Amino acid sequence: MSGAQDDREQRLTNEVVASFDDAADPRLRTVLQALTRHLHAFLREVRLTEDEWRSAITFLTETGHLTDDRRQEFILLSDVLGASMQTVAINDEAHANATEATVFGPFFVAGSPKIELGGDLAGGGPGEPCWVAGTVTDTDGNPVPDALIEVWEADEDGYYDVQYDDDRVAARGHLRTDAAGGYRFWALTPTPYPIPHDGPVGSLLAAAGRSPMRAAHLHFMVRADGRRTLVTHIFVRGDEYLDRDSVFGVTPSLVKDFTREAAGTPTPDGRDVGGRTWSRVRFDIVLAPLA
Amino acid sequence: MSGAQDDREQRLTNEVVASFDDAADPRLRTVLQALTRHLHAFLREVRLTEDEWRSAITFLTETGHLTDDRRQEFILLSDVLGASMQTVAINDEAHANATEATVFGPFFVAGSPKIELGGDLAGGGPGEPCWVAGTVTDTDGNPVPDALIEVWEADEDGYYDVQYDDDRVAARGHLRTDAAGGYRFWALTPTPYPIPHDGPVGSLLAAAGRSPMRAAHLHFMVRADGRRTLVTHIFVRGDEYLDRDSVFGVTPSLVKDFTREAAGTPTPDGRDVGGRTWSRVRFDIVLAPLA
Repeated sequence: MSGAQDDREQRLTNEVVASFDDAADPRLRTVLQALTRHLHAFLREVRLTEDEWRSAITFLTETGHLTDDRRQEFILLSDVLGASMQTVAINDEAHANATEATVFGPFFVAGSPKIELGGDLAGGGPGEPCWVAGTVTDTDGNPVPDALIEVWEADEDGYYDVQYDDDRVAARGHLRTDAAGGYRFWALTPTPYPIPHDGPVGSLLAAAGRSPMRAAHLHFMVRADGRRTLVTHIFVRGDEYLDRDSVFGVTPSLVKDFTREAAGTPTPDGRDVGGRTWSRVRFDIVLAPLA
Repeated sequence: MSGAQDDREQRLTNEVVASFDDAADPRLRTVLQALTRHLHAFLREVRLTEDEWRSAITFLTETGHLTDDRRQEFILLSDVLGASMQTVAINDEAHANATEATVFGPFFVAGSPKIELGGDLAGGGPGEPCWVAGTVTDTDGNPVPDALIEVWEADEDGYYDVQYDDDRVAARGHLRTDAAGGYRFWALTPTPYPIPHDGPVGSLLAAAGRSPMRAAHLHFMVRADGRRTLVTHIFVRGDEYLDRDSVFGVTPSLVKDFTREAAGTPTPDGRDVGGRTWSRVRFDIVLAPLA
Protein backbone atom coordinates (compact mmCIF):
# COMPACT_ATOMS: atom_id res chain seq x y z
CA MET A 1 0.00 0.00 0.00
CA SER A 2 1.22 3.49 -0.81
CA GLY A 3 1.94 5.98 1.93
CA ALA A 4 -0.74 8.27 0.47
CA GLN A 5 -3.33 5.50 0.72
CA ASP A 6 -2.28 4.70 4.26
CA ASP A 7 -2.56 8.40 5.15
CA ARG A 8 -5.99 8.66 3.58
CA GLU A 9 -7.30 5.69 5.58
CA GLN A 10 -5.74 6.88 8.84
CA ARG A 11 -7.11 10.41 8.36
CA LEU A 12 -10.59 8.98 7.92
CA THR A 13 -10.28 6.93 11.12
CA ASN A 14 -9.05 10.01 12.98
CA GLU A 15 -11.96 12.06 11.63
CA VAL A 16 -14.52 9.54 12.86
CA VAL A 17 -12.82 9.25 16.27
CA ALA A 18 -12.85 13.05 16.59
CA SER A 19 -16.57 13.16 15.73
CA PHE A 20 -17.24 11.62 19.14
CA ASP A 21 -15.21 14.22 21.05
CA ASP A 22 -18.33 16.10 22.15
CA ALA A 23 -20.21 13.15 23.65
CA ALA A 24 -21.60 14.38 26.97
CA ASP A 25 -20.95 11.08 28.73
CA PRO A 26 -17.19 10.43 28.93
CA ARG A 27 -17.72 6.66 29.13
CA LEU A 28 -19.78 6.70 25.93
CA ARG A 29 -17.05 8.73 24.28
CA THR A 30 -14.41 6.21 25.37
CA VAL A 31 -16.43 3.22 24.15
CA LEU A 32 -17.39 4.72 20.77
CA GLN A 33 -13.90 5.99 20.05
CA ALA A 34 -12.38 2.60 20.89
CA LEU A 35 -15.06 0.86 18.81
CA THR A 36 -14.23 3.11 15.86
CA ARG A 37 -10.49 2.45 16.14
CA HIS A 38 -10.84 -1.33 16.39
CA LEU A 39 -13.53 -1.51 13.68
CA HIS A 40 -11.43 0.51 11.24
CA ALA A 41 -8.31 -1.47 12.11
CA PHE A 42 -10.23 -4.65 11.26
CA LEU A 43 -11.46 -3.28 7.93
CA ARG A 44 -8.00 -2.07 6.99
CA GLU A 45 -6.25 -5.27 8.05
CA VAL A 46 -8.47 -7.59 6.00
CA ARG A 47 -8.94 -5.03 3.17
CA LEU A 48 -12.67 -5.72 3.28
CA THR A 49 -14.19 -5.78 -0.19
CA GLU A 50 -17.41 -3.98 -1.06
CA ASP A 51 -19.09 -7.33 -1.74
CA GLU A 52 -18.06 -8.48 1.73
CA TRP A 53 -19.45 -5.23 3.20
CA ARG A 54 -22.77 -5.89 1.47
CA SER A 55 -22.74 -9.47 2.77
CA ALA A 56 -22.20 -8.16 6.30
CA ILE A 57 -25.16 -5.75 5.95
CA THR A 58 -27.33 -8.60 4.68
CA PHE A 59 -26.14 -10.87 7.50
CA LEU A 60 -27.00 -8.27 10.15
CA THR A 61 -30.35 -7.54 8.51
CA GLU A 62 -31.29 -11.23 8.52
CA THR A 63 -30.10 -11.55 12.11
CA GLY A 64 -32.34 -8.63 13.06
CA HIS A 65 -35.36 -9.98 11.26
CA LEU A 66 -35.07 -13.39 12.92
CA THR A 67 -34.84 -11.83 16.39
CA ASP A 68 -38.07 -11.55 18.35
CA ASP A 69 -39.36 -12.18 21.88
CA ARG A 70 -38.51 -15.88 21.62
CA ARG A 71 -35.41 -15.91 19.44
CA GLN A 72 -32.38 -13.74 20.13
CA GLU A 73 -30.05 -14.21 17.18
CA PHE A 74 -27.80 -11.27 18.19
CA ILE A 75 -27.02 -12.97 21.50
CA LEU A 76 -26.23 -16.17 19.58
CA LEU A 77 -23.91 -14.17 17.34
CA SER A 78 -22.15 -12.63 20.33
CA ASP A 79 -21.95 -16.10 21.88
CA VAL A 80 -20.37 -17.88 18.92
CA LEU A 81 -17.81 -15.08 18.47
CA GLY A 82 -16.83 -15.51 22.12
CA ALA A 83 -17.81 -11.88 22.78
CA SER A 84 -20.33 -12.89 25.44
CA MET A 85 -17.86 -15.08 27.29
CA GLN A 86 -15.09 -12.47 26.97
CA THR A 87 -17.44 -9.87 28.53
CA VAL A 88 -18.19 -12.32 31.33
CA ALA A 89 -14.49 -12.98 31.87
CA ILE A 90 -13.68 -9.26 31.97
CA ASN A 91 -16.36 -8.62 34.59
CA ASP A 92 -15.59 -11.73 36.58
CA GLU A 93 -12.10 -10.45 37.39
CA ALA A 94 -11.05 -10.37 41.02
CA HIS A 95 -14.05 -11.98 42.63
CA ALA A 96 -11.68 -14.19 44.56
CA ASN A 97 -13.31 -17.44 45.62
CA ALA A 98 -16.76 -16.55 44.29
CA THR A 99 -18.42 -18.97 41.88
CA GLU A 100 -17.36 -18.26 38.32
CA ALA A 101 -19.81 -16.77 35.85
CA THR A 102 -20.52 -17.87 32.31
CA VAL A 103 -22.70 -16.76 29.41
CA PHE A 104 -26.30 -15.69 29.87
CA GLY A 105 -27.52 -17.23 26.62
CA PRO A 106 -30.65 -16.27 24.68
CA PHE A 107 -33.27 -18.35 26.54
CA PHE A 108 -33.84 -16.70 29.91
CA VAL A 109 -37.46 -15.60 30.37
CA ALA A 110 -38.53 -13.24 33.16
CA GLY A 111 -41.53 -14.36 35.21
CA SER A 112 -40.75 -18.05 35.51
CA PRO A 113 -42.90 -20.23 37.79
CA LYS A 114 -42.18 -20.03 41.52
CA ILE A 115 -41.37 -23.40 43.01
CA GLU A 116 -41.07 -24.42 46.65
CA LEU A 117 -37.85 -25.80 48.08
CA GLY A 118 -37.69 -29.41 46.95
CA GLY A 119 -40.22 -28.75 44.20
CA ASP A 120 -40.00 -29.83 40.57
CA LEU A 121 -39.36 -27.27 37.86
CA ALA A 122 -39.48 -29.74 34.98
CA GLY A 123 -43.07 -28.71 34.33
CA GLY A 124 -43.75 -31.93 32.43
CA GLY A 125 -40.86 -31.42 30.02
CA PRO A 126 -39.31 -34.67 28.78
CA GLY A 127 -36.14 -35.88 30.50
CA GLU A 128 -34.58 -37.81 33.34
CA PRO A 129 -35.27 -36.37 36.83
CA CYS A 130 -32.26 -34.68 38.42
CA TRP A 131 -32.03 -33.70 42.10
CA VAL A 132 -30.06 -30.46 42.50
CA ALA A 133 -29.05 -29.24 45.95
CA GLY A 134 -26.51 -26.96 47.56
CA THR A 135 -26.00 -23.80 49.51
CA VAL A 136 -25.57 -20.12 48.74
CA THR A 137 -22.89 -18.40 50.82
CA ASP A 138 -20.88 -15.23 50.66
CA THR A 139 -17.13 -15.19 50.06
CA ASP A 140 -16.56 -15.41 53.86
CA GLY A 141 -18.60 -18.58 54.07
CA ASN A 142 -21.69 -17.04 55.66
CA PRO A 143 -25.03 -18.44 54.45
CA VAL A 144 -27.13 -16.17 52.25
CA PRO A 145 -30.80 -16.76 53.17
CA ASP A 146 -33.60 -15.72 50.84
CA ALA A 147 -31.33 -15.59 47.80
CA LEU A 148 -33.37 -15.74 44.59
CA ILE A 149 -32.30 -18.61 42.33
CA GLU A 150 -33.52 -18.69 38.73
CA VAL A 151 -32.95 -21.96 36.87
CA TRP A 152 -33.57 -22.79 33.21
CA GLU A 153 -32.51 -25.56 30.84
CA ALA A 154 -33.27 -27.44 27.65
CA ASP A 155 -35.29 -30.66 27.83
CA GLU A 156 -33.87 -34.03 26.74
CA ASP A 157 -34.93 -33.30 23.16
CA GLY A 158 -32.61 -30.29 23.20
CA TYR A 159 -35.26 -27.57 23.27
CA TYR A 160 -36.11 -24.83 25.72
CA ASP A 161 -39.83 -24.33 26.29
CA VAL A 162 -39.84 -21.08 24.30
CA GLN A 163 -38.62 -22.96 21.24
CA TYR A 164 -41.93 -24.85 21.06
CA ASP A 165 -44.95 -23.30 19.41
CA ASP A 166 -47.40 -24.35 22.12
CA ASP A 167 -46.73 -21.71 24.81
CA ARG A 168 -45.63 -24.36 27.28
CA VAL A 169 -43.66 -23.33 30.37
CA ALA A 170 -41.25 -26.12 31.30
CA ALA A 171 -37.75 -26.70 32.66
CA ARG A 172 -37.57 -23.25 34.20
CA GLY A 173 -38.49 -21.83 37.59
CA HIS A 174 -37.32 -19.81 40.56
CA LEU A 175 -36.98 -20.47 44.27
CA ARG A 176 -35.41 -18.93 47.37
CA THR A 177 -32.80 -20.26 49.74
CA ASP A 178 -33.83 -21.19 53.28
CA ALA A 179 -32.54 -19.60 56.50
CA ALA A 180 -29.33 -21.63 56.29
CA GLY A 181 -28.73 -20.63 52.65
CA GLY A 182 -29.75 -24.09 51.48
CA TYR A 183 -31.70 -24.94 48.34
CA ARG A 184 -32.92 -28.07 46.60
CA PHE A 185 -35.15 -28.87 43.65
CA TRP A 186 -35.91 -31.38 40.96
CA ALA A 187 -34.98 -30.53 37.37
CA LEU A 188 -33.98 -32.58 34.31
CA THR A 189 -30.56 -34.14 33.80
CA PRO A 190 -28.95 -31.77 31.27
CA THR A 191 -28.15 -33.16 27.82
CA PRO A 192 -26.08 -31.65 24.98
CA TYR A 193 -28.04 -29.79 22.31
CA PRO A 194 -27.37 -27.57 19.30
CA ILE A 195 -27.91 -23.85 19.55
CA PRO A 196 -30.58 -22.79 17.04
CA HIS A 197 -28.75 -23.12 13.74
CA ASP A 198 -31.43 -22.56 11.11
CA GLY A 199 -30.59 -18.84 10.89
CA PRO A 200 -27.65 -16.65 9.87
CA VAL A 201 -25.56 -17.67 12.90
CA GLY A 202 -26.06 -21.34 12.00
CA SER A 203 -25.00 -20.58 8.43
CA LEU A 204 -21.89 -18.86 9.75
CA LEU A 205 -21.02 -21.87 11.92
CA ALA A 206 -21.55 -24.23 8.98
CA ALA A 207 -19.35 -22.11 6.70
CA ALA A 208 -16.69 -22.09 9.41
CA GLY A 209 -16.86 -25.87 9.84
CA ARG A 210 -17.97 -25.46 13.46
CA SER A 211 -20.48 -27.57 15.35
CA PRO A 212 -23.50 -25.81 16.90
CA MET A 213 -23.44 -28.22 19.88
CA ARG A 214 -23.35 -26.95 23.42
CA ALA A 215 -22.01 -29.00 26.30
CA ALA A 216 -24.88 -30.17 28.54
CA HIS A 217 -25.65 -27.59 31.22
CA LEU A 218 -28.13 -26.15 33.69
CA HIS A 219 -28.48 -22.34 33.81
CA PHE A 220 -28.47 -20.43 37.11
CA MET A 221 -28.99 -16.78 37.90
CA VAL A 222 -28.63 -16.00 41.62
CA ARG A 223 -29.52 -12.66 43.19
CA ALA A 224 -29.28 -11.51 46.80
CA ASP A 225 -29.22 -8.13 48.52
CA GLY A 226 -25.73 -6.69 48.76
CA ARG A 227 -24.27 -9.42 46.50
CA ARG A 228 -23.16 -9.38 42.91
CA THR A 229 -25.72 -11.16 40.72
CA LEU A 230 -24.26 -14.42 39.45
CA VAL A 231 -25.12 -15.71 35.98
CA THR A 232 -23.66 -19.14 35.43
CA HIS A 233 -24.18 -22.76 34.41
CA ILE A 234 -23.13 -26.09 35.76
CA PHE A 235 -21.78 -28.62 33.27
CA VAL A 236 -21.78 -32.42 33.37
CA ARG A 237 -18.41 -34.08 34.00
CA GLY A 238 -17.65 -36.53 31.19
CA ASP A 239 -19.76 -34.72 28.59
CA GLU A 240 -18.24 -35.09 25.13
CA TYR A 241 -18.62 -31.39 24.26
CA LEU A 242 -16.81 -29.89 27.25
CA ASP A 243 -13.76 -29.01 25.18
CA ARG A 244 -15.68 -27.69 22.15
CA ASP A 245 -18.70 -25.87 23.50
CA SER A 246 -20.04 -23.73 20.65
CA VAL A 247 -20.23 -20.61 22.84
CA PHE A 248 -16.97 -21.09 24.80
CA GLY A 249 -18.86 -21.17 28.12
CA VAL A 250 -17.05 -24.01 29.89
CA THR A 251 -14.64 -23.34 32.75
CA PRO A 252 -13.28 -26.21 34.83
CA SER A 253 -14.72 -24.99 38.15
CA LEU A 254 -18.24 -25.26 36.74
CA VAL A 255 -17.96 -28.91 35.69
CA LYS A 256 -19.82 -30.99 38.29
CA ASP A 257 -20.39 -34.66 39.06
CA PHE A 258 -23.89 -35.61 38.04
CA THR A 259 -24.29 -39.00 39.76
CA ARG A 260 -26.70 -41.31 37.97
CA GLU A 261 -28.76 -43.53 40.28
CA ALA A 262 -30.21 -46.86 39.21
CA ALA A 263 -33.94 -47.26 38.80
CA GLY A 264 -35.49 -47.95 42.18
CA THR A 265 -32.87 -46.12 44.21
CA PRO A 266 -34.69 -44.14 46.91
CA THR A 267 -34.74 -40.41 46.20
CA PRO A 268 -33.51 -37.83 48.76
CA ASP A 269 -37.03 -36.57 49.45
CA GLY A 270 -38.87 -39.85 48.98
CA ARG A 271 -40.36 -38.77 45.65
CA ASP A 272 -41.52 -41.59 43.42
CA VAL A 273 -39.84 -41.03 40.04
CA GLY A 274 -41.79 -43.83 38.42
CA GLY A 275 -39.25 -46.61 38.54
CA ARG A 276 -36.74 -44.90 36.25
CA THR A 277 -33.15 -43.76 36.62
CA TRP A 278 -32.47 -40.35 38.10
CA SER A 279 -29.40 -38.24 38.79
CA ARG A 280 -28.16 -35.94 41.50
CA VAL A 281 -25.72 -33.08 41.64
CA ARG A 282 -24.45 -30.76 44.36
CA PHE A 283 -23.71 -27.15 43.54
CA ASP A 284 -22.52 -24.83 46.30
CA ILE A 285 -22.75 -21.24 45.18
CA VAL A 286 -20.51 -18.46 46.47
CA LEU A 287 -21.67 -14.89 45.78
CA ALA A 288 -19.20 -12.01 45.51
CA PRO A 289 -19.86 -8.73 47.29
CA LEU A 290 -21.11 -5.80 45.24
CA ALA A 291 -18.22 -3.96 43.65
CA MET B 1 -5.12 -6.44 35.97
CA SER B 2 -3.44 -9.61 37.23
CA GLY B 3 -1.33 -11.75 34.95
CA ALA B 4 -3.73 -14.63 35.56
CA GLN B 5 -6.69 -12.51 34.41
CA ASP B 6 -4.79 -11.36 31.35
CA ASP B 7 -3.92 -14.98 30.56
CA ARG B 8 -7.53 -16.08 30.96
CA GLU B 9 -8.77 -13.42 28.55
CA GLN B 10 -6.03 -14.09 25.99
CA ARG B 11 -6.65 -17.85 26.15
CA LEU B 12 -10.32 -17.26 25.41
CA THR B 13 -9.50 -15.09 22.40
CA ASN B 14 -7.08 -17.73 21.14
CA GLU B 15 -9.72 -20.43 21.58
CA VAL B 16 -12.27 -18.51 19.51
CA VAL B 17 -9.70 -17.73 16.80
CA ALA B 18 -8.76 -21.42 16.63
CA SER B 19 -12.42 -22.40 16.29
CA PHE B 20 -12.33 -20.92 12.78
CA ASP B 21 -9.28 -22.92 11.70
CA ASP B 22 -11.37 -25.41 9.75
CA ALA B 23 -13.31 -22.94 7.62
CA ALA B 24 -13.26 -24.33 4.08
CA ASP B 25 -12.86 -20.89 2.49
CA PRO B 26 -9.49 -19.40 3.44
CA ARG B 27 -10.77 -15.84 2.95
CA LEU B 28 -13.68 -16.47 5.35
CA ARG B 29 -11.21 -17.88 7.87
CA THR B 30 -9.00 -14.78 7.56
CA VAL B 31 -11.93 -12.39 7.97
CA LEU B 32 -13.54 -14.18 10.92
CA GLN B 33 -10.25 -14.66 12.74
CA ALA B 34 -9.35 -10.99 12.31
CA LEU B 35 -12.88 -9.98 13.36
CA THR B 36 -12.52 -12.09 16.51
CA ARG B 37 -9.13 -10.59 17.40
CA HIS B 38 -10.25 -6.99 16.91
CA LEU B 39 -13.62 -7.52 18.63
CA HIS B 40 -11.99 -9.10 21.68
CA ALA B 41 -9.28 -6.42 21.77
CA PHE B 42 -12.04 -3.78 21.85
CA LEU B 43 -13.92 -5.53 24.67
CA ARG B 44 -10.74 -5.94 26.70
CA GLU B 45 -9.51 -2.40 26.13
CA VAL B 46 -12.74 -0.73 27.28
CA ARG B 47 -13.48 -3.42 29.92
CA LEU B 48 -17.04 -3.62 28.60
CA THR B 49 -19.55 -4.03 31.42
CA GLU B 50 -22.38 -6.53 31.30
CA ASP B 51 -24.91 -3.68 31.29
CA GLU B 52 -23.14 -2.23 28.27
CA TRP B 53 -23.20 -5.62 26.57
CA ARG B 54 -26.97 -5.82 27.15
CA SER B 55 -27.36 -2.28 25.77
CA ALA B 56 -25.44 -3.30 22.67
CA ILE B 57 -27.72 -6.33 22.14
CA THR B 58 -30.78 -4.10 22.56
CA PHE B 59 -29.32 -1.52 20.17
CA LEU B 60 -28.68 -4.14 17.49
CA THR B 61 -32.11 -5.68 18.02
CA GLU B 62 -33.84 -2.30 17.57
CA THR B 63 -31.68 -1.59 14.53
CA GLY B 64 -32.77 -4.91 13.04
CA HIS B 65 -36.44 -4.36 13.75
CA LEU B 66 -36.43 -0.91 12.13
CA THR B 67 -34.77 -2.24 8.98
CA ASP B 68 -37.08 -3.18 6.12
CA ASP B 69 -37.31 -2.74 2.34
CA ARG B 70 -37.47 1.04 2.72
CA ARG B 71 -35.28 1.71 5.74
CA GLN B 72 -31.76 0.31 6.13
CA GLU B 73 -30.66 1.18 9.64
CA PHE B 74 -27.59 -1.11 9.50
CA ILE B 75 -26.22 0.85 6.54
CA LEU B 76 -26.82 4.07 8.48
CA LEU B 77 -24.94 2.56 11.42
CA SER B 78 -22.03 1.57 9.19
CA ASP B 79 -22.15 5.05 7.65
CA VAL B 80 -22.02 7.06 10.91
CA LEU B 81 -19.18 4.89 12.24
CA GLY B 82 -17.22 5.66 9.07
CA ALA B 83 -17.09 1.94 8.26
CA SER B 84 -18.82 2.43 4.92
CA MET B 85 -16.46 5.21 3.86
CA GLN B 86 -13.43 3.29 5.12
CA THR B 87 -14.50 0.28 3.01
CA VAL B 88 -14.88 2.59 0.03
CA ALA B 89 -11.44 4.10 0.67
CA ILE B 90 -9.82 0.66 0.95
CA ASN B 91 -11.32 -0.46 -2.36
CA ASP B 92 -10.70 2.82 -4.11
CA GLU B 93 -6.94 2.35 -3.74
CA ALA B 94 -4.83 2.60 -6.84
CA HIS B 95 -7.46 3.58 -9.34
CA ALA B 96 -5.16 6.35 -10.49
CA ASN B 97 -7.05 9.18 -12.14
CA ALA B 98 -10.46 7.51 -11.94
CA THR B 99 -13.30 9.39 -10.26
CA GLU B 100 -13.27 8.82 -6.52
CA ALA B 101 -15.96 6.73 -4.91
CA THR B 102 -17.99 7.50 -1.82
CA VAL B 103 -20.65 5.79 0.31
CA PHE B 104 -23.58 3.96 -1.24
CA GLY B 105 -26.07 5.05 1.42
CA PRO B 106 -29.36 3.34 2.28
CA PHE B 107 -31.66 4.85 -0.38
CA PHE B 108 -30.76 3.23 -3.68
CA VAL B 109 -33.69 1.35 -5.23
CA ALA B 110 -33.26 -1.06 -8.12
CA GLY B 111 -35.65 -0.59 -11.02
CA SER B 112 -35.67 3.19 -11.21
CA PRO B 113 -37.42 4.92 -14.14
CA LYS B 114 -35.54 5.03 -17.44
CA ILE B 115 -35.08 8.54 -18.73
CA GLU B 116 -33.90 9.75 -22.12
CA LEU B 117 -30.79 11.88 -22.51
CA GLY B 118 -31.82 15.37 -21.52
CA GLY B 119 -34.88 14.07 -19.69
CA ASP B 120 -36.07 15.03 -16.22
CA LEU B 121 -35.73 12.56 -13.35
CA ALA B 122 -37.32 14.83 -10.74
CA GLY B 123 -40.60 13.00 -11.22
CA GLY B 124 -42.55 15.90 -9.74
CA GLY B 125 -40.52 15.98 -6.53
CA PRO B 126 -40.23 19.46 -5.00
CA GLY B 127 -37.05 21.40 -5.65
CA GLU B 128 -35.16 23.74 -7.93
CA PRO B 129 -34.37 22.33 -11.40
CA CYS B 130 -30.71 21.40 -11.91
CA TRP B 131 -29.11 20.64 -15.28
CA VAL B 132 -26.43 17.96 -14.92
CA ALA B 133 -24.13 17.14 -17.83
CA GLY B 134 -20.77 15.56 -18.48
CA THR B 135 -18.96 12.67 -20.04
CA VAL B 136 -17.97 9.16 -19.06
CA THR B 137 -14.48 8.17 -20.11
CA ASP B 138 -11.95 5.52 -19.21
CA THR B 139 -8.67 6.30 -17.48
CA ASP B 140 -7.01 6.78 -20.89
CA GLY B 141 -9.55 9.43 -21.86
CA ASN B 142 -11.53 7.30 -24.28
CA PRO B 143 -15.29 7.86 -24.25
CA VAL B 144 -17.43 5.09 -22.73
CA PRO B 145 -20.64 4.87 -24.78
CA ASP B 146 -23.73 3.13 -23.43
CA ALA B 147 -22.57 3.39 -19.80
CA LEU B 148 -25.50 2.96 -17.41
CA ILE B 149 -25.86 5.94 -15.04
CA GLU B 150 -28.15 5.58 -12.02
CA VAL B 151 -28.94 8.83 -10.20
CA TRP B 152 -30.86 9.36 -6.96
CA GLU B 153 -31.24 12.19 -4.48
CA ALA B 154 -33.38 13.74 -1.77
CA ASP B 155 -35.92 16.42 -2.69
CA GLU B 156 -35.72 19.96 -1.32
CA ASP B 157 -37.65 18.88 1.79
CA GLY B 158 -34.82 16.47 2.59
CA TYR B 159 -36.61 13.23 1.77
CA TYR B 160 -36.00 10.46 -0.72
CA ASP B 161 -39.15 9.17 -2.42
CA VAL B 162 -39.03 5.91 -0.41
CA GLN B 163 -39.31 7.90 2.81
CA TYR B 164 -42.85 8.98 1.87
CA ASP B 165 -45.81 6.72 2.54
CA ASP B 166 -47.44 7.29 -0.84
CA ASP B 167 -45.37 4.97 -3.08
CA ARG B 168 -44.19 7.91 -5.18
CA VAL B 169 -41.17 7.47 -7.46
CA ALA B 170 -39.28 10.76 -7.70
CA ALA B 171 -35.78 12.19 -7.90
CA ARG B 172 -34.33 8.93 -9.18
CA GLY B 173 -33.78 7.48 -12.61
CA HIS B 174 -31.32 5.88 -14.99
CA LEU B 175 -29.99 6.76 -18.41
CA ARG B 176 -27.22 5.73 -20.80
CA THR B 177 -24.37 7.69 -22.30
CA ASP B 178 -24.41 8.51 -26.00
CA ALA B 179 -21.85 7.38 -28.59
CA ALA B 180 -19.41 10.08 -27.44
CA GLY B 181 -19.77 9.09 -23.78
CA GLY B 182 -21.87 12.18 -23.10
CA TYR B 183 -24.85 12.45 -20.79
CA ARG B 184 -27.25 15.15 -19.62
CA PHE B 185 -30.40 15.29 -17.57
CA TRP B 186 -32.52 17.47 -15.34
CA ALA B 187 -32.60 16.72 -11.63
CA LEU B 188 -33.11 18.82 -8.48
CA THR B 189 -30.46 21.10 -6.97
CA PRO B 190 -29.22 19.07 -3.97
CA THR B 191 -29.92 20.48 -0.50
CA PRO B 192 -28.55 19.37 2.89
CA TYR B 193 -30.78 17.03 4.87
CA PRO B 194 -30.58 14.90 8.01
CA ILE B 195 -30.15 11.16 7.73
CA PRO B 196 -33.15 9.41 9.31
CA HIS B 197 -32.58 10.03 13.00
CA ASP B 198 -35.74 8.76 14.67
CA GLY B 199 -34.19 5.34 15.29
CA PRO B 200 -31.29 3.84 17.25
CA VAL B 201 -28.65 5.43 14.99
CA GLY B 202 -30.24 8.85 15.57
CA SER B 203 -30.19 8.22 19.31
CA LEU B 204 -26.53 7.31 19.09
CA LEU B 205 -25.72 10.52 17.20
CA ALA B 206 -27.68 12.59 19.74
CA ALA B 207 -25.88 10.94 22.67
CA ALA B 208 -22.59 11.62 20.93
CA GLY B 209 -23.48 15.28 20.34
CA ARG B 210 -23.27 14.76 16.57
CA SER B 211 -25.48 16.31 13.92
CA PRO B 212 -27.38 13.97 11.56
CA MET B 213 -26.94 16.44 8.67
CA ARG B 214 -25.46 15.37 5.39
CA ALA B 215 -23.77 17.77 3.01
CA ALA B 216 -25.99 18.33 -0.06
CA HIS B 217 -25.27 15.74 -2.74
CA LEU B 218 -26.45 13.87 -5.81
CA HIS B 219 -25.86 10.09 -5.91
CA PHE B 220 -24.40 8.36 -8.96
CA MET B 221 -23.79 4.72 -9.74
CA VAL B 222 -22.10 4.18 -13.11
CA ARG B 223 -21.67 0.79 -14.75
CA ALA B 224 -20.06 -0.15 -18.04
CA ASP B 225 -18.70 -3.36 -19.55
CA GLY B 226 -15.09 -3.95 -18.62
CA ARG B 227 -15.06 -1.06 -16.12
CA ARG B 228 -15.16 -0.97 -12.37
CA THR B 229 -18.61 0.09 -11.17
CA LEU B 230 -18.40 3.55 -9.63
CA VAL B 231 -20.60 4.49 -6.66
CA THR B 232 -20.19 8.12 -5.81
CA HIS B 233 -21.81 11.51 -5.14
CA ILE B 234 -21.17 15.02 -6.21
CA PHE B 235 -21.29 17.69 -3.51
CA VAL B 236 -22.11 21.42 -3.75
CA ARG B 237 -19.20 23.80 -3.34
CA GLY B 238 -19.92 26.25 -0.52
CA ASP B 239 -22.28 23.91 1.34
CA GLU B 240 -22.03 24.49 5.10
CA TYR B 241 -21.83 20.76 5.93
CA LEU B 242 -18.88 19.83 3.69
CA ASP B 243 -16.53 19.60 6.67
CA ARG B 244 -18.93 17.75 8.97
CA ASP B 245 -20.88 15.37 6.81
CA SER B 246 -22.53 12.86 9.17
CA VAL B 247 -21.30 9.87 7.14
CA PHE B 248 -17.79 11.15 6.28
CA GLY B 249 -18.52 10.92 2.54
CA VAL B 250 -16.94 14.17 1.33
CA THR B 251 -13.66 14.17 -0.56
CA PRO B 252 -12.40 17.35 -2.24
CA SER B 253 -12.40 15.95 -5.77
CA LEU B 254 -16.17 15.38 -5.57
CA VAL B 255 -17.08 18.94 -4.61
CA LYS B 256 -18.44 20.66 -7.74
CA ASP B 257 -19.56 24.12 -8.76
CA PHE B 258 -23.33 24.23 -8.96
CA THR B 259 -23.93 27.50 -10.81
CA ARG B 260 -27.24 29.14 -9.97
CA GLU B 261 -28.91 30.91 -12.87
CA ALA B 262 -31.36 33.79 -12.42
CA ALA B 263 -35.02 33.29 -13.24
CA GLY B 264 -35.55 33.75 -16.95
CA THR B 265 -32.06 32.65 -17.98
CA PRO B 266 -32.44 30.42 -21.05
CA THR B 267 -31.85 26.74 -20.25
CA PRO B 268 -29.33 24.61 -22.21
CA ASP B 269 -32.07 22.60 -23.94
CA GLY B 270 -34.66 25.36 -24.15
CA ARG B 271 -36.82 23.85 -21.46
CA ASP B 272 -39.24 26.25 -19.80
CA VAL B 273 -38.63 25.94 -16.06
CA GLY B 274 -41.57 28.14 -15.19
CA GLY B 275 -39.80 31.43 -14.60
CA ARG B 276 -37.83 30.24 -11.61
CA THR B 277 -34.14 29.96 -10.78
CA TRP B 278 -32.29 26.88 -11.86
CA SER B 279 -28.76 25.55 -11.47
CA ARG B 280 -26.25 23.70 -13.58
CA VAL B 281 -23.28 21.47 -12.84
CA ARG B 282 -20.76 19.61 -14.94
CA PHE B 283 -19.51 16.21 -13.80
CA ASP B 284 -17.00 14.34 -15.95
CA ILE B 285 -16.76 10.75 -14.82
CA VAL B 286 -13.66 8.58 -15.25
CA LEU B 287 -14.15 4.83 -14.83
CA ALA B 288 -11.30 2.58 -13.69
CA PRO B 289 -10.60 -0.71 -15.46
CA LEU B 290 -11.74 -3.93 -13.78
CA ALA B 291 -9.16 -5.12 -11.29
